[in-house]
Amino acid sequence: MLKFFFGPQSCALASHIALEEAGAAYEAVKLDLRAGDQRKPEYLKVNPKGRVPALVTDRGVLTENPAILAYIAQTHPAKKLAPLDDAYAFGKIQSFNSYLCATVHVAHAHKLRGYRWADQQSSFDDMKQKVPETVAACFDLIENEMLEGPWVAGADFSIADPYLFTLSSWLEGDGVDPKRFPKVLDHRNRMAQRPAVQQVLPLHA
Amino acid sequence: MLKFFFGPQSCALASHIALEEAGAAYEAVKLDLRAGDQRKPEYLKVNPKGRVPALVTDRGVLTENPAILAYIAQTHPAKKLAPLDDAYAFGKIQSFNSYLCATVHVAHAHKLRGYRWADQQSSFDDMKQKVPETVAACFDLIENEMLEGPWVAGADFSIADPYLFTLSSWLEGDGVDPKRFPKVLDHRNRMAQRPAVQQVLPLHA
Repeated sequence: MLKFFFGPQSCALASHIALEEAGAAYEAVKLDLRAGDQRKPEYLKVNPKGRVPALVTDRGVLTENPAILAYIAQTHPAKKLAPLDDAYAFGKIQSFNSYLCATVHVAHAHKLRGYRWADQQSSFDDMKQKVPETVAACFDLIENEMLEGPWVAGADFSIADPYLFTLSSWLEGDGVDPKRFPKVLDHRNRMAQRPAVQQVLPLHA
Repeated sequence: MLKFFFGPQSCALASHIALEEAGAAYEAVKLDLRAGDQRKPEYLKVNPKGRVPALVTDRGVLTENPAILAYIAQTHPAKKLAPLDDAYAFGKIQSFNSYLCATVHVAHAHKLRGYRWADQQSSFDDMKQKVPETVAACFDLIENEMLEGPWVAGADFSIADPYLFTLSSWLEGDGVDPKRFPKVLDHRNRMAQRPAVQQVLPLHA
């Protein structure tokens, strides 16, 4: 059985929702990120990066949302969580998820995790102040260029949707009014009504 | 035919090498990134993010190295650039590429691109000073935990290898001595001898 490590209010929510959408057989293990569970030796054996999410399979451990999401889709093909037989359509979803991972999440992380890239308090303050601008620029692009609608990839729900839902749920905390992005907000509202989201979300509080 | 947009000394090298390894039919278009070609209206129609790489297919445009690399592998299956029928092994490669994209490249980008996440010169200086530490920490993890050897995924060359080669070629410029990472350095040296790399590398100078 799969074992899924997550932390509350983290990006691991994306893969957690996808596991539910897939009807996967898995055990979820919640880490206390504020207490530093993710840096304890027993967890570093699972994921030496000291981050969530991590998905333990019978073959080994997968990390990084884009990789875990694709794995869930590929191992539950009947659920049609990605266009597995269409390299271009699959690539569009991977492109979207890669943008969330490497640009949107990174922009957000400069609010509270500035110490990853700098040492001075003045730099942390400067980074934090810029987050509303950088995150809004990302969501402008998502709203106007990337979100096909009604789902990220168009008519069909996919592994890109729980990931967008996860990151768009951070907008208010990042000082960005989600009403600026009507398509994203509509997407978020529809996502919130899915049984998989209602099942998983309370565990992430 | 595919059309591939790249810039010199950019991460687009990874996908460019993979196109050569695949024997793909493609036209390569070099942007002058210093002149700002990537922000000109005609290129923003191709990639509204204003970044490279971008791969134009007959269906539309793919961006982000992890997505383009997977697409190249999937559309050239005979070249065996990824374990396409093994979701776990494919997931490991995607996990590796996602780490390069979202953590290693991002650490590197704080040297010259601090303006993406802050506004003050003092912050840029602080970020730049920390790059040798953060990039070295990434490569410690790659050396000790992630690079199976001789190739990233073990015995078989894959789409993870040109991507690692691209980012490990930045080590000296980031103030990190590659000799600290013997497996990575050996990988880089073997990559440099591949015909695909020798074909493409001069175009990226």
